[in-house]
Amino acid sequence: MIKTGIIGATGYAGGELVRILTAHKEAEIKWYGSRSYIDKKYAEVYQNMFQIVDNKCMDDNMDALSREVDVIFTATPQGLCASLVSEEILSRTKIVDLSADFRIKDVKIYEQWYKITHPAPQYIPEAVYGLSEINREAVKKARLTANPGCYPTCSTLCVYPLLKEGLIDPGTVIIDAKSGTSGAGRGAKTDNLFCEVNENIKAYGVAGHRHTPEIEEQLSYAAGEPVVINFTPHLVPMNRGILITAYASLKRETTYEEVKAAYDKYYAFERFVRVLEKDVCPQTKWVEGSNYVDVNFKLDPRTNRIIMMGAMDNLVKGAAGQAVQNMNLMFGLKESEGLELVPMFP
Amino acid sequence: MIKTGIIGATGYAGGELVRILTAHKEAEIKWYGSRSYIDKKYAEVYQNMFQIVDNKCMDDNMDALSREVDVIFTATPQGLCASLVSEEILSRTKIVDLSADFRIKDVKIYEQWYKITHPAPQYIPEAVYGLSEINREAVKKARLTANPGCYPTCSTLCVYPLLKEGLIDPGTVIIDAKSGTSGAGRGAKTDNLFCEVNENIKAYGVAGHRHTPEIEEQLSYAAGEPVVINFTPHLVPMNRGILITAYASLKRETTYEEVKAAYDKYYAFERFVRVLEKDVCPQTKWVEGSNYVDVNFKLDPRTNRIIMMGAMDNLVKGAAGQAVQNMNLMFGLKESEGLELVPMFP
Amino acid sequence: MIKTGIIGATGYAGGELVRILTAHKEAEIKWYGSRSYIDKKYAEVYQNMFQIVDNKCMDDNMDALSREVDVIFTATPQGLCASLVSEEILSRTKIVDLSADFRIKDVKIYEQWYKITHPAPQYIPEAVYGLSEINREAVKKARLTANPGCYPTCSTLCVYPLLKEGLIDPGTVIIDAKSGTSGAGRGAKTDNLFCEVNENIKAYGVAGHRHTPEIEEQLSYAAGEPVVINFTPHLVPMNRGILITAYASLKRETTYEEVKAAYDKYYAFERFVRVLEKDVCPQTKWVEGSNYVDVNFKLDPRTNRIIMMGAMDNLVKGAAGQAVQNMNLMFGLKESEGLELVPMFP
Amino acid sequence: MIKTGIIGATGYAGGELVRILTAHKEAEIKWYGSRSYIDKKYAEVYQNMFQIVDNKCMDDNMDALSREVDVIFTATPQGLCASLVSEEILSRTKIVDLSADFRIKDVKIYEQWYKITHPAPQYIPEAVYGLSEINREAVKKARLTANPGCYPTCSTLCVYPLLKEGLIDPGTVIIDAKSGTSGAGRGAKTDNLFCEVNENIKAYGVAGHRHTPEIEEQLSYAAGEPVVINFTPHLVPMNRGILITAYASLKRETTYEEVKAAYDKYYAFERFVRVLEKDVCPQTKWVEGSNYVDVNFKLDPRTNRIIMMGAMDNLVKGAAGQAVQNMNLMFGLKESEGLELVPMFP
Repeated sequence: MIKTGIIGATGYAGGELVRILTAHKEAEIKWYGSRSYIDKKYAEVYQNMFQIVDNKCMDDNMDALSREVDVIFTATPQGLCASLVSEEILSRTKIVDLSADFRIKDVKIYEQWYKITHPAPQYIPEAVYGLSEINREAVKKARLTANPGCYPTCSTLCVYPLLKEGLIDPGTVIIDAKSGTSGAGRGAKTDNLFCEVNENIKAYGVAGHRHTPEIEEQLSYAAGEPVVINFTPHLVPMNRGILITAYASLKRETTYEEVKAAYDKYYAFERFVRVLEKDVCPQTKWVEGSNYVDVNFKLDPRTNRIIMMGAMDNLVKGAAGQAVQNMNLMFGLKESEGLELVPMFP
Repeated sequence: MIKTGIIGATGYAGGELVRILTAHKEAEIKWYGSRSYIDKKYAEVYQNMFQIVDNKCMDDNMDALSREVDVIFTATPQGLCASLVSEEILSRTKIVDLSADFRIKDVKIYEQWYKITHPAPQYIPEAVYGLSEINREAVKKARLTANPGCYPTCSTLCVYPLLKEGLIDPGTVIIDAKSGTSGAGRGAKTDNLFCEVNENIKAYGVAGHRHTPEIEEQLSYAAGEPVVINFTPHLVPMNRGILITAYASLKRETTYEEVKAAYDKYYAFERFVRVLEKDVCPQTKWVEGSNYVDVNFKLDPRTNRIIMMGAMDNLVKGAAGQAVQNMNLMFGLKESEGLELVPMFP
Repeated sequence: MIKTGIIGATGYAGGELVRILTAHKEAEIKWYGSRSYIDKKYAEVYQNMFQIVDNKCMDDNMDALSREVDVIFTATPQGLCASLVSEEILSRTKIVDLSADFRIKDVKIYEQWYKITHPAPQYIPEAVYGLSEINREAVKKARLTANPGCYPTCSTLCVYPLLKEGLIDPGTVIIDAKSGTSGAGRGAKTDNLFCEVNENIKAYGVAGHRHTPEIEEQLSYAAGEPVVINFTPHLVPMNRGILITAYASLKRETTYEEVKAAYDKYYAFERFVRVLEKDVCPQTKWVEGSNYVDVNFKLDPRTNRIIMMGAMDNLVKGAAGQAVQNMNLMFGLKESEGLELVPMFP
Repeated sequence: MIKTGIIGATGYAGGELVRILTAHKEAEIKWYGSRSYIDKKYAEVYQNMFQIVDNKCMDDNMDALSREVDVIFTATPQGLCASLVSEEILSRTKIVDLSADFRIKDVKIYEQWYKITHPAPQYIPEAVYGLSEINREAVKKARLTANPGCYPTCSTLCVYPLLKEGLIDPGTVIIDAKSGTSGAGRGAKTDNLFCEVNENIKAYGVAGHRHTPEIEEQLSYAAGEPVVINFTPHLVPMNRGILITAYASLKRETTYEEVKAAYDKYYAFERFVRVLEKDVCPQTKWVEGSNYVDVNFKLDPRTNRIIMMGAMDNLVKGAAGQAVQNMNLMFGLKESEGLELVPMFP
């Protein structure tokens, strides 16, 4: 039984970690860290956990925590994990960091986009970018896994095979993303009130969202050259779900079968990436509550572009589910353990 | 491995049966009955099941079906199960009927409220009303279980202990119910279009909803005398969830502790009924996707009334979850098998 | 042209006042009071007002304001209006107070339910309870109008005729209310975040909501005897709208026509109360954006009770619209001036 | 007083025409055409109109209708208006056609995308494309106005100035559009049920939506050369609103001020197009219920692209509001008559 601890257990991603790990047969939660609710019963904060979780919330003392558990999940804002991690802690426990601290290899880019000084750049080189489907082998050996951002997970999985196979022009990638509101976190802000989000849609962070360099780095690995993209996220009046609509110019005339083969080459045997049948558009509702990413594409011969689409649950494959998938890999468990969640509809 | 068949597998309750049974360790689905989609792949109707269910939809030939499976779930409108059932079928297979056909013992009341002639009243006496918490022992021995309606499940569980313990006046019970829109089914009707339901709330079936006599019958058993109630359902702009707010006059001055003890007497050891802590109001979101019913109450000394509240997921405990709970009982399995679903929040 | 000033112009009720007064032919807004946004352009807080309102937000100096305007609307939490009002101010300007400060005639009841000391009880006697349909003549002469609460407006209008005509037993009134989330205000609280409200319904303030004594006072006037009720509000995942479902026992056998006549007696000539046709249930969406209250009822001979229903827009007839209706009366304008808003559907 | 008739008065766009014309000071509705509801009271179909509209629904006899009214609005599916129009009718009355029949000048393109034979191509040359801001003078003289589609209205207004001023490369335009569900109409289809749309987002009509050639034609006029675009609409869980996010490559290095000047050149004096302040993103909620289109843009020097954004109410400026704007122009009324609707928030 793997002992786990969560720092930031009362945010939405933290809550989803609790939901998933509670049902995980080979893991148990020993530490529900939540600075805002120390000593309050966890089930009073998340009433869904009444009679399921009896524990109280703890502080975020990572040193103490590392003596009690095999793996720590940090589901906290950027800067926190990096400010607490140390060689001593890493010698005792593994870490899956759900924040952005160790996702970007070039610390200057991190500091420029996140506008903070990185507190522990010395761990960046060893951190593994935990997009399980792409970096599976490296994750298995990692002490410190940087769990990808929600938008980067879905965006990268949509576009990766086509860049890797050289089918699209890297300089033409445009990603238009739509997210449910849980992606904005549980902080009490006017902009996230029900009445402000409901019956409304807007773009935000246009040409400046922090997930942009993270996506660019991953796509650059795929393309084998630097990729610069446009990335525009939108806030949608729903709780969960991310939909990606990505555009790129084809390098040459290409058939449906050719593109399908490219996706299948990378995903045919992936448990959590479903390449949909021809002409079926991904919908966020079809993956809700599950660890799936549904992807598909449409060729437009009129413009010689391809439209790539992807849907996933931002709190599962976009956060907690992928974190558990990485934990499974890091501890040699079955990769899908605890993640065989059937999407809930409606 | 119990072999199961579903008639009406492409309605919302049928779809939820598929979701739950797919993850059930001791049952498998052999027959996805759906007259509207015969020969179409089930996963094309419910795209969430892509790569999970490979089967095609079948017709509703209950005779053929009964030769292949151990238990049949009928998730169809009233009248269908009763028109298909026969002694021969029941000799070969068990039935959990999610329709109203066998819920009401007095066939005249059934015919009066449902405005159809009952096609098989001879099976009414043996049918067991499958409110597992109340009729557990009878369900274990049943061939034919009448799975309770969504509103009756939540209403009865809220009010039952207080009537049983004689704390409230049976003639004063008023039940004001609120339901998500999945309760209205998947039929394409203007009234259920997104734009008609969204940003809207209304009562419907006022003083005439068909679940009224079903609730009255169960409450009458509890009270030991005929109970007549007011029951008013409302349509709420959400997918899932039923909330019950029930009112009754106390027979005498009563304390919080006394009422709490009454609820605990019946539910303290129930896996799926959670009596919440003092002053915590049930919320449908806290039980979404799970088989829980959350109940609580508030005494109002100013009016000498009690307000009883209950929340559950109408598709789980109010339909498919309870049907599986009954199947588990009928086959001697662990009652919670396949139902240890952690509520999903948000 | 009547000069108006608003204190609390950036709350949801304040914003709705701005929307209505902007289109009002005989009134203009001279003062957009909002302590939180002083000196910020109003249209930066409410972007819908871009190129419509050019003014900046002002403080809540009621003394200064009273020298500039003919009428002040206070759309602020309880206590504020009462703490600022004075004889001097009232000698210069009229006030429509949207808070609860002057709604309840018995100051002890106010202080007990609101848990604050009333800062200016001396103005309670002269304040007129601004339920225009009931107190029209008194409102016309008022200097200080206490604009009714949202729930009390809809509840009182539903139940009033039947108590007045002696058709129902005052001791049996139960009001089950459902409100959209704008009723909770624009304060940044976790409970009102999109993800907490969406796909969720709950009761709150059970047996203790502050609108209870306000409703009771009005119903007592109608009944000619003290009325004590149960009032249970619920939070519904929609922006606007209040739906009331009220229950009471009939004093004697009564026909549809008799009850209809009672409603017609009071509302047949009312511009803003629509008694719907037989068996049509009020829906909040049918009144959205307008000053209408739709009411109807259903008799239940089985229980000898009546179910009364009412729907209105909580921000219009339940707040800003009624405030403007009162202003119109106080200044001798056409009562419906600026309020002939056609409900928006869908 | 202009006499108007509506064919298709019970669809969502037709209902919005009724809402707007009811409050229009210089127009009255004489004919509520709705083949599905002939002889039913209009207010029974749209209960919001109770006590506002007393008329019954009529058939769609355009010949009879043309003898009674000054202008006919056809808010019907493609093909109907073209199959009913005749020289005789046009000699008696003006027509504002809300369908696609007369929007596209090249009948072959119409027939190819709409997959029907055009029943009256002889009227295409004289029909004026009623994008009021662009074709104002021509609309004033028109007998037959082709009211633009919802997506084309918002898309064209966003992109038009930059193509006209030669700032962007016409071959690089990509339009990612998001629409509320009222755009899908009031037909009872499973795909538009509440439970299918709520908590869900999807693309549809990818690389094949019928509004594509309409947008391309208008943008081609602006560019002075044929423009081929990618257009991807998405269905969003809200009733009203369209948001456009459009991408294009800049022809050369350009400043914020230069682009702002381009927008101002065309829209500074437009009543219904609001160019927002720097860095304010359009939101559909800020224009709900009104005839405004809010537009803005963001330059991305990293990719040398511009992101253009626009928000409007699809039923107002995207359908009924624009139709009334065109009627006002065609009859020499004030262009904003009946359209000075303040957006409703929240």
